[in-house]
Amino acid sequence: MSIETKESKKIIVLGGDGFCGWPTSLHLSNLGHDVVIIDNLSRRNIDNELEAQSLTPIQPMGTRLKAWEEVSGRKINFYNFNIATEYDTLLAVLLDEQPDVIIHFAEQRSAPYSMKSPKHKRYTVNNNVNATHNVLCAIVESGLDIHLVHLGTMGVYGYGTAGMKIPEGYLDVKVPTETGELIHQQILYPTNPGSVYHMTKTQDQLLFHYYNKNDGIRITDLHQGIVWGTNTKETMLDDRLINRFDYDGDYGTVLNRFLMQAAVGYPITVHGTGGQTRAFIHIQDTVRCIQLAIENPPKHDERVMIFNQMTETHRVNDLAHLVSDLAGGEVVYVSNPRKEAAENELYVSNDLFLSKGLNPTTLDNGLLQEVTDIAKKYAHRVDYSKIPARSTWTKEQKPGVPEKKTEKMV
Amino acid sequence: MSIETKESKKIIVLGGDGFCGWPTSLHLSNLGHDVVIIDNLSRRNIDNELEAQSLTPIQPMGTRLKAWEEVSGRKINFYNFNIATEYDTLLAVLLDEQPDVIIHFAEQRSAPYSMKSPKHKRYTVNNNVNATHNVLCAIVESGLDIHLVHLGTMGVYGYGTAGMKIPEGYLDVKVPTETGELIHQQILYPTNPGSVYHMTKTQDQLLFHYYNKNDGIRITDLHQGIVWGTNTKETMLDDRLINRFDYDGDYGTVLNRFLMQAAVGYPITVHGTGGQTRAFIHIQDTVRCIQLAIENPPKHDERVMIFNQMTETHRVNDLAHLVSDLAGGEVVYVSNPRKEAAENELYVSNDLFLSKGLNPTTLDNGLLQEVTDIAKKYAHRVDYSKIPARSTWTKEQKPGVPEKKTEKMV
Repeated sequence: MSIETKESKKIIVLGGDGFCGWPTSLHLSNLGHDVVIIDNLSRRNIDNELEAQSLTPIQPMGTRLKAWEEVSGRKINFYNFNIATEYDTLLAVLLDEQPDVIIHFAEQRSAPYSMKSPKHKRYTVNNNVNATHNVLCAIVESGLDIHLVHLGTMGVYGYGTAGMKIPEGYLDVKVPTETGELIHQQILYPTNPGSVYHMTKTQDQLLFHYYNKNDGIRITDLHQGIVWGTNTKETMLDDRLINRFDYDGDYGTVLNRFLMQAAVGYPITVHGTGGQTRAFIHIQDTVRCIQLAIENPPKHDERVMIFNQMTETHRVNDLAHLVSDLAGGEVVYVSNPRKEAAENELYVSNDLFLSKGLNPTTLDNGLLQEVTDIAKKYAHRVDYSKIPARSTWTKEQKPGVPEKKTEKMV
Repeated sequence: MSIETKESKKIIVLGGDGFCGWPTSLHLSNLGHDVVIIDNLSRRNIDNELEAQSLTPIQPMGTRLKAWEEVSGRKINFYNFNIATEYDTLLAVLLDEQPDVIIHFAEQRSAPYSMKSPKHKRYTVNNNVNATHNVLCAIVESGLDIHLVHLGTMGVYGYGTAGMKIPEGYLDVKVPTETGELIHQQILYPTNPGSVYHMTKTQDQLLFHYYNKNDGIRITDLHQGIVWGTNTKETMLDDRLINRFDYDGDYGTVLNRFLMQAAVGYPITVHGTGGQTRAFIHIQDTVRCIQLAIENPPKHDERVMIFNQMTETHRVNDLAHLVSDLAGGEVVYVSNPRKEAAENELYVSNDLFLSKGLNPTTLDNGLLQEVTDIAKKYAHRVDYSKIPARSTWTKEQKPGVPEKKTEKMV
């Protein structure tokens, strides 16, 4: 295996068992970094709660790590604990491991899950805010010079911004002084999150801003688009390394869901008119972007560095028809369980990653076919009752359940 | 006693045992509202932790409420539980009491306390964010049409804003579109909090914005300046109704501390150069502002209403000399334990409260004298060792302890 990196770093991946965390851990390990995973397996426990599971048969962490060592000859350490509640353990691990970098994926990351009930709203806020804050506190208390890389979301910006191109985190504005003169200021882009989950990521931004200002913590915040695909170069090396594939109404994301729906003979189900425009990135680019973020840390005394981690934007309805053309299947329109604008434009700047050398993977029939193939291969594992999006944003919204039943729908 | 109000409301005061919460509860009860207090007595428990106490001999809640009933003939109900952790109880009380208004003071409100240690930082974030979020969740789940009034802080804005007059929550900006054209937008004022405590109030703003947008909750957020004074019309009615007076380095606030220091023969201790400009409000105006906020709720479907709850701005050094001239005592300068600009200007709009009928109480020798008299009356209760500000913002900052010892200093 090729070791591409110049300098090996000690990297802790928080949430390294998850959909983005696992392939990131393998990618960085493969580059020659010394990777340590911390994860409390909350995502697997939520599968238990929701009585849903990954379409792909993911293996227990012990099996995953053994397989990786066999395949690559490289060891990844694993700690199972909850960073949102076990602060003393977190601090002890930092002092023990002395990481150069922490990558923070350890948050509840589903918008529909965050809206299911007061219990789910409260879990998401409590878990995400305390997880992020504990990491920042522990970095300060450790006295170590750690670069923190956080997975944020494009969803902090909100959508439909009157023709503005969404910048990378900061916005140039002209504001009036007391005398009415317009002066130039650069501000954090005003947020407009679309769910309790997205809101927690806007709260994270304030934590980052403060700890960067007060304690000089070096922080990179990656505002990621919707991730699609499932495999990366490393997860394909062995069946036991296979990545998650979420298709259920809470954790499945739009493009992967369309591909999977087409592959298993379920209607390609569009919420509302499908006029929502969203930003996308392939999982292979996710792991590459994180590598680039690590290789290009902010300087000491530099403000929080914000990248838009996405490669393209698409209208949801266009994606549905693209998938229908590629894989067959009927496009159906159902009620939108989310409270959001029916239609929006979206212009996003991603110049910063392009300037650091990202060569974007865009929608490509080959890659789309690969996802379809995976979905077909594991179609026997599908629980059709888990496909509809049943979590609604308010009591007035209706779940996204197709009216016409196909033979496979229950 | 005069009952001034036209319409009696059921009002729950969260944090109704505290420095602002207690006089607010009495004021509203006196106006004829049906007041219910929820408080877990955390502020008294923190006194135990810090081995500090109110300069004034505040009475237990039972004594306070009995005295109020004797004096006014009006009953105030009291629940002792933690809204940040006991969500089910909170919801049950809302369903039971069916309030028209909730006033939310129930947050850890000291900046120095929030910076003492990782434990204190983590308590402040965990307590404040979950308290606010639980209130919002419970209002949605109750299905009741409740007006939420929250005590925020001028500190969300940050200080020293290049000559800008700080507006009431929202800022008019001109931003470039993709084609370079400047378009007008109104955004939440970009925050720049000065401590972990202040940061939690900026996180609250995001919670309010989201729950107002998604669930239509009517919310008033009061960005309050530094409160001074101790008594209100109602707390003066009986010794047992006396309000807190905090003078210690963590909970005491600047003007009250100067007055108290002069009264008890401690140096009037200025942090840094005293070039910081801050916004102030007298406690009598605090309770009056909350009354006005209740009488002028936002409409349904209106965005979060933000008032700047302050009546004047002063440079800290000017206040020190004003107090020295009034009450005697030497002004001394010590290291600033906070990480902040040494000097700043501050221009604040408070037009909204003025338009609703606030007749501001400004610094007045009579009222300053009244605070001095209180401090002198209870001077025998002072623990001099608790006066210096010992909580520092980073390991590099130094505590604010005068070098020259007076006979009363330990």
